[in-house]
Amino acid sequence: MSALVEFAIYTSALALAERDEAQARHVLDNESRINNMQIEIDELSTRLLALEQPVARDLRFITAAIKINSDLERMGDLAVNIAERSISLARALVVRPLIDVPHMADLAESMVRKALDAFVKGDADLARSVLVSDDAVDELRDGMYHELVSYMQRDPAAVRQSVDLMFVAHDLERIADHATNIAEVALYLVEGIDVRHHAEARK
Amino acid sequence: MSALVEFAIYTSALALAERDEAQARHVLDNESRINNMQIEIDELSTRLLALEQPVARDLRFITAAIKINSDLERMGDLAVNIAERSISLARALVVRPLIDVPHMADLAESMVRKALDAFVKGDADLARSVLVSDDAVDELRDGMYHELVSYMQRDPAAVRQSVDLMFVAHDLERIADHATNIAEVALYLVEGIDVRHHAEARK
Repeated sequence: MSALVEFAIYTSALALAERDEAQARHVLDNESRINNMQIEIDELSTRLLALEQPVARDLRFITAAIKINSDLERMGDLAVNIAERSISLARALVVRPLIDVPHMADLAESMVRKALDAFVKGDADLARSVLVSDDAVDELRDGMYHELVSYMQRDPAAVRQSVDLMFVAHDLERIADHATNIAEVALYLVEGIDVRHHAEARK
Repeated sequence: MSALVEFAIYTSALALAERDEAQARHVLDNESRINNMQIEIDELSTRLLALEQPVARDLRFITAAIKINSDLERMGDLAVNIAERSISLARALVVRPLIDVPHMADLAESMVRKALDAFVKGDADLARSVLVSDDAVDELRDGMYHELVSYMQRDPAAVRQSVDLMFVAHDLERIADHATNIAEVALYLVEGIDVRHHAEARK
């Protein structure tokens, strides 16, 4: 499921950067596979809890999987949103170079990859590195919003595309947030501490 | 926690409609209580799984609580976003009446209330009524987007506020999505069927 979601994020960003509608369609076609896996993983987790009555680390791992499962499915949705926006953007004239979008997409993708690696390998340092990147993504998004607003104010013809790009930036930032959630779960699994909503414990 | 989240959604919509910054501050001040409850509920759920080794309906109830907990926390975040936008909007000149926002907020709020009631009371019909409302919220959002885009195209001075309103519409639609998630969990709990991603099973 992680592989499918990583692929969806990568491909949606590629579709956008290369104005490639076929890549975007790939993402849309793959969505149902991600959705089906979400249901399977939920069922399997609940069955494991019921039949095996796991304790200690096994129990924490399964509850972690239940949480990550919902983050992954939501990231798949966000990749679909980006793919849809990329189709609309590919058909429009380019009024603005996409300078920050590929950068933001790269950063979000690498956070997702690291968060999932941290979870699978139980690597606390890698998980912490994801938490740090979250602020950089927020800054990139704020910069893009600012730029796009002034762009729309100057040129009415740029409004529609700027709105699309604004939502792409929003979706990428949300993907980064979900990567952060996964890193927090990974950290909880390895170190037993809950860093959510506690910036001081993230160090 | 449900009561806190319902209150946050209600108050953020009120802050927006009445241009009331004090109400918006209430929402911001309450966020940490919601966040703390999320952590408490997660800990309690995991402890119950470990110590009581629940089976059958008790087990399903606890895994449902773990899922709903994360939906509730996210709804609290979205109410905070709306409250922040309402502060920015309250300080700006009114360039557009907020016609659809209160309507959309009412609908989203009632979905949240019904979804949580359906979960607590195990009421499948009530849960299904939430699933139906989700489409109406999507339509309201699409209508608002369309209107706001043409508004921004006509008047550069309206861009900033229109962007704020566009994100408010987006956040309300996301709140409705989370209410839908909760209704799906409630339905699964009562009837044992998983209606996620299966429109035909929702009837």
